Amino acid sequence: MTAPIIHGGGITEAAARFGGAPDDWLDLSTGINPCPVALPEIDPRVWHRLPDRYLEDTAREAASRYYGAGGIMPLPVPGTQAVIQLLPRLVGARKRVAIFAPTYGEYARVLTGAGLAVDFIGSAEDLADGYSLAVVVNPNNPTGRLFAPEEILAMAETIKARGGLIVVDEAFGDLEPAASVARHVAAHDNLVVFRSFGKFFGLAGLRLGFVIAAPAIIETFRDGLGPWAVSGPALAISAKLMQADTSSIRDRILERKAALDAVLGGAGLDIVGGTGLFALVESEGAYDLHAALCEAHILTRKFDYNPRWLRIGLAATAEGDRRLAAALNRAGV
Amino acid sequence: MTAPIIHGGGITEAAARFGGAPDDWLDLSTGINPCPVALPEIDPRVWHRLPDRYLEDTAREAASRYYGAGGIMPLPVPGTQAVIQLLPRLVGARKRVAIFAPTYGEYARVLTGAGLAVDFIGSAEDLADGYSLAVVVNPNNPTGRLFAPEEILAMAETIKARGGLIVVDEAFGDLEPAASVARHVAAHDNLVVFRSFGKFFGLAGLRLGFVIAAPAIIETFRDGLGPWAVSGPALAISAKLMQADTSSIRDRILERKAALDAVLGGAGLDIVGGTGLFALVESEGAYDLHAALCEAHILTRKFDYNPRWLRIGLAATAEGDRRLAAALNRAGV
Repeated sequence: MTAPIIHGGGITEAAARFGGAPDDWLDLSTGINPCPVALPEIDPRVWHRLPDRYLEDTAREAASRYYGAGGIMPLPVPGTQAVIQLLPRLVGARKRVAIFAPTYGEYARVLTGAGLAVDFIGSAEDLADGYSLAVVVNPNNPTGRLFAPEEILAMAETIKARGGLIVVDEAFGDLEPAASVARHVAAHDNLVVFRSFGKFFGLAGLRLGFVIAAPAIIETFRDGLGPWAVSGPALAISAKLMQADTSSIRDRILERKAALDAVLGGAGLDIVGGTGLFALVESEGAYDLHAALCEAHILTRKFDYNPRWLRIGLAATAEGDRRLAAALNRAGV
Repeated sequence: MTAPIIHGGGITEAAARFGGAPDDWLDLSTGINPCPVALPEIDPRVWHRLPDRYLEDTAREAASRYYGAGGIMPLPVPGTQAVIQLLPRLVGARKRVAIFAPTYGEYARVLTGAGLAVDFIGSAEDLADGYSLAVVVNPNNPTGRLFAPEEILAMAETIKARGGLIVVDEAFGDLEPAASVARHVAAHDNLVVFRSFGKFFGLAGLRLGFVIAAPAIIETFRDGLGPWAVSGPALAISAKLMQADTSSIRDRILERKAALDAVLGGAGLDIVGGTGLFALVESEGAYDLHAALCEAHILTRKFDYNPRWLRIGLAATAEGDRRLAAALNRAGV
């Protein structure tokens, strides 16, 4: 049994503590596009039947093109979390693992919980120690640190020399297509890319991600998940949305991010990192600021490992921006 | 890596072999209610957000009442398959497992694949040998064999004496509420009940099931699945449907099953088992009959371990019944 899980998205809990109806809270605690894409029409049979191979293949082909995976057919999975859970199975028992840190906490939680020895590393040179698995979130959550493809590929070579794999979690990669290593997987059999569908499209409730990896690794994940792991609606919706033009989604996100940055900058906050879907601010009193925003029924993300950081996601509208600006002003930032 | 998976629902493959457009096939190869319940309205936020605790708790409370689980809050899981995949983790390595056979093949596939020693058993007395886990599908797929609750509870006691668990898969249990042992889980901490949401409601594409078990076992499954394992739409839809009156769903299934039995009986076929959602027929030439029905673009389920059996699911309409009757007539049954 591993440690309890505490994540963003906990509006219900926050409202129970600070008051207000959950629906009236402004949730800036996640990295999800706050302007969900309109759902395409769903054939009723997609709800009714077990997801069949045709449905899965259609989503895989759309994902291969959308992610630029070349000859690789990405494996649909019920969220990146589902494959993080399977990493211990991929690596085997009593192995050493390196995680570029600080980053999304689920990697360390799951790998440590499975009894693997986890080192937190900061630079590619640390990989020379020899690991069975390296994990790098790229761009990183929450810092936004971004390695170039050639840096990632060099890491893949380094770790391969000792028989290791590298997982590149590109959950926030949709806005940085040039930085993706998805197109290099076909030529690097120890390179494993995780993609998240829900963040960019604003459909996190769907539970869908993709794994881009060599066929043997895909089979290990498929074997661990078993048949019909992803819902029919998730496959059908994602296939249609990945085939459509996504530039308006991207433009909307970037417009919302610029508005967020303007609010934070206007409040004198120091933006030290982020991606298109969130900003990371550093402040002496970040915990107090988190609490003050909660009093205004605005939820942001604080970090137990760094009390100077606050991660702030996008508001859906300019009205949300103004509400954040007013709350920051009242908090005396 | 375990053996390849072959299941019902393969209309695409069948059409590729026997011709016809997949949409024109009559799929009687599954045990899914062919008359899906109308979907309730889904709050757009359910698609957008990560499924939160409130959404999960609402589904759990609805499931507890619907399954009569007493004080136990069932754990939502992304289909029974997802927890079958986790059974090796629940049991531990190098243990002995008993499966009441013949039955749904995924139990043996997954447990054998994980290196557990699997015995196929036929009667409760066989459990006296001492097993870490027993699996009984009740009512059974495909035979329909049904143990009474007191028989299941006696098995639970027998296996508990040697420290074992019993998994009772009630995937086809919605039409046999009196036979369910869900209400006994609170008093039997080695009794684990699996329920399938999609079969009775006709929504297999949703990928949803529930585990009813003692809190420590629930936590092991939850830990194996990780957070947000079930999609938001699955939680929201199931909560609403389990709170509503389901008698019309039940009546419709039983009407469709009576019509199927009439067709099979009228064709002189010997019905040797089944549940409300399918019939099992025994025939010397079951494989030939399967092929003849494929020629008529009707897919049924044959069994590699018993060439005399054919499992036939429900048609959605009387027109489907007539189509089946005509094909059986042409096949010279």
